Formats: sequence, structure tokens, C-alpha cells
Amino acid sequence: MTYCVALKLNAGLVFASDSRTNAGVDQIACFKKMRIFERAGDRVIVVLSSGNLSITQNAINLLEQHGQYQERRNIWNVASMFDVAQLLGETLREVRDHDGAFLAQNNIDSSANFIVGGQISGEAMRLFLVYAEGNFIEAGDETPFFQIGETKYGKPIIDRVIHSDTALSDAVKCVLVSFDSTMRSNLSVGLPIDVACYLQSSLGLDFKQHITQDDPYFSQISRRWSDGLKGVFASLPNPDWLNRIDNSAHFPGTE
Amino acid sequence: MTYCVALKLNAGLVFASDSRTNAGVDQIACFKKMRIFERAGDRVIVVLSSGNLSITQNAINLLEQHGQYQERRNIWNVASMFDVAQLLGETLREVRDHDGAFLAQNNIDSSANFIVGGQISGEAMRLFLVYAEGNFIEAGDETPFFQIGETKYGKPIIDRVIHSDTALSDAVKCVLVSFDSTMRSNLSVGLPIDVACYLQSSLGLDFKQHITQDDPYFSQISRRWSDGLKGVFASLPNPDWLNRIDNSAHFPGTE
Repeated sequence: MTYCVALKLNAGLVFASDSRTNAGVDQIACFKKMRIFERAGDRVIVVLSSGNLSITQNAINLLEQHGQYQERRNIWNVASMFDVAQLLGETLREVRDHDGAFLAQNNIDSSANFIVGGQISGEAMRLFLVYAEGNFIEAGDETPFFQIGETKYGKPIIDRVIHSDTALSDAVKCVLVSFDSTMRSNLSVGLPIDVACYLQSSLGLDFKQHITQDDPYFSQISRRWSDGLKGVFASLPNPDWLNRIDNSAHFPGTE
Repeated sequence: MTYCVALKLNAGLVFASDSRTNAGVDQIACFKKMRIFERAGDRVIVVLSSGNLSITQNAINLLEQHGQYQERRNIWNVASMFDVAQLLGETLREVRDHDGAFLAQNNIDSSANFIVGGQISGEAMRLFLVYAEGNFIEAGDETPFFQIGETKYGKPIIDRVIHSDTALSDAVKCVLVSFDSTMRSNLSVGLPIDVACYLQSSLGLDFKQHITQDDPYFSQISRRWSDGLKGVFASLPNPDWLNRIDNSAHFPGTE
């Protein structure tokens, strides 16, 4: 399994992905699920992937390989992030056309998703979610984030905290808390986490961090968040009817 | 969609279910997803259901109807909760056999899940999860809870708080927080919530509460939990590298 999330804020873009892949519990490995295409001053493009690993890797490798042929429309010469999302959807379709039927013979799912975001000189930052069928949608102000993979455990904190005007530091903190919640509830999502930040209009990748098991900051966040939640929980009042239960012997007929 | 959760603690059992069902966004209705079979001094059995509403209703109605025939093995005369889980699985199979193929003709999913728990005089409290195929598993001390329906958003708080020795009042509070998180992230889960509590060996239903939109306690829990989370989040430290981002113009080459 995988967990990836990307935020499009007024201040910039935040991307994060875990590194665990698994094919059965006895085969867990680390592969990067974040690929970065950068030409400083011209474009920064970050791709996060989830789903069948051979499909996602091949699609991105194809995207990269096509980029070597200057005569064709490719990731280095298209003029907008919309075109980039379209190219990525096309390479995904190409790989699934090539391999999907063979995988299906063994009931192996060839589906895959991508989040792709960044900025190309001449237009604003943009963020897209590419579906398994190769079609895609774009993030707006109302829902300024996308998640792929094991998305639900980590969504509540993002729903509560993230708005378009959230500061980048708070956004990164929120993303790490979201990963912490996900990893606690699903063993197939795990460290290390790759985090990348892009500041609006910088046209260069502004920050990357590779967070491993030994990362003191992540350990601290994880522990303090857990303790804090327990503290808030303990401070919530019991209603009268619950107090009656704990004190009680048996209250027949309280229905 | 639906969210139901049940906990098996040393002190007793806690059951909770939402009441929203939907078939498309324009058809949302409230139906109870909790059914209680009680004969004081002999047995208390609580069933929570998720999935296709006609299937779950019919299965439970059948379970109830079979109970009127004393000559057959039924929910009122079997000697163990294991037998109850088996009966429920059998009625589920019966209904799916009867209706499943007709639903499948219109690509309607006939799958359904149940949680069933309680106590029958002569044995301890027990809690089971019945799968859509009619087979089932029992909760143990290590994982003293089951969820069905839209389970993931509300799981992190249960993972953090619930152990076998959690007090019933804390358990009910935790369940309500879990519902609050779920309802925030998925509109198809909604109030009212039905909560039932059973105290170990009481052999009578000890408490039921129907929590509606106007419930002052639930509103208070929801608001204080939200404020508390935001407070804990705000208190988490930023790492050095994030502080650099917010202060910064652009940090080229920090990779």
C-alpha cells in the first residue's frame, strides 16, 4: 500500500509520499514514490504515485524517456501543467495497454493513480489528480489537496487544518501528523517519508526532506500528537448518563 | 453509507450506529441500523448492520420471524452467541440467495455485514463480525472492537484509546469522537446516532441513547474535540528546516 498527499496553498505546494510497497506481508520493500522534474527558472514538476508499482514506474520512466526526444511534445517542452497531466495520463494508458491484459490473466490489478503538481514559467502553480483511466482533475481553492493510496485514516486532520491560506510550515506539520495517523492504523504504509516543498513562483525546488525511522523531529511530533490527543480526550466531559453507567450496578429499564 | 462500531471491554459491551442511508445524493433517509433482542435474565443480543438495506433488513426480519417457531433452532433458544452469529450468517445467505441475482441484473451490490454481540445466560459476553458471505469471526482481547461501513476515518482514535480495560464511559466518549471524525470526512454518515451499553453479566440492556442533531452533549464533545485538536496541533514544534521555509524567500539547492 501507499500513502501520498499533495497540497496547493497560496504560499506554495507541499508533496509527501511514503516508501513502502508490499506484495503480501512477506515482501515489503522501499521504493521512492516521488519523482521530481526540475529545470530551475523554467519548471518544477513533482509526481507522486500509488497503485501497481511496475505500472507506475514504467509510466514515469516513459514520461522521462519521451522527454529526451525534443521533436515530440514532452514534459520539458509543454507550456502548461495541464499538458503535463495529460502526458502523464497518456503514458499511464500506454503502459496499461501494454501490460494490463497480461496482469489480468493472473488477476493482478494494473490500476494506478498519480498526483502531479508544480509550476511552469508563464502560468500559476497547479495540482492535478490523474485517475487509473488516465483522465484527471485539478485542485481548486475549496479542496486544496489530493490524496492517493490509503487515504482515509489521514484525512480527518487535513480536513480540519488545511485551507488555501495555511502557512507552509503548518501544512508540512499537518502532513506529517496525517502520515502518523495512517501508519498507526495501516501497517502497509511506512517510513521513510519523502517531503518536498515548492514556494509560489520560485521555479526551483525549495525543499526536500527524507524522513527515516531515526528522524528525531518526526518521533517528537508523533509522540506529542499522541499525548496531546489523549490529553484532549481525557478532558472531554462525560454526560450524566455515562457517569451513571460507571458508578452503577445495573440500571434495568433505563431505555 | 453507514458507520457502526462495537467494543467488547472487560466492563461490558458498547454498540453504536448512525442512521443515514443513501441511494444517490438525492435520496437520504434515516433507518435504524441497530436491532436489539432482549429477554431480561436470559439474553441480550444487539445486531448492527451495514450494506444493502433491503438485504440487512430482510435478514434481521427473518432472524426475528424464525424466532417465533419454537420447534426450530432460533435466536431465543440457542445456547451461545456463537450459535447466534451462525444463525445470522445463515439468514444473510438465505436473503442473498433469494434476491442477489435479481439485484445483480441491475449491477446492484447485495453485500452486507453485521456486528452481533451480547450475552446468553451460562456463557460470557461475546462479539462477532459477520461477513457478506455469512462466515464470521470473534473479537478477542487484542483487538476488542469491530467496525463496519465507513470505518477508516473513525479508526485512529479507537486505535489510540480503546483497550480491554477501558472504562465504559471513556469507551462511549471515544465512540462519539470516532463518529464525529467520520461525519466530518464523509457526508453520507450522519446523525442521529444510536448508542447502547451492556454491563458484563447484567443480562439486561443497561443503556440506550438516541443522539440527534440537537443533542447538547454531542455538540459539546464535537466542538471541544475540534478545538482541542487544533490546540495540540498549534503546540507542535516546527523543525528548523520548516522555519527556514516560512521566513524565506527562495532557498535554491537545499536538496
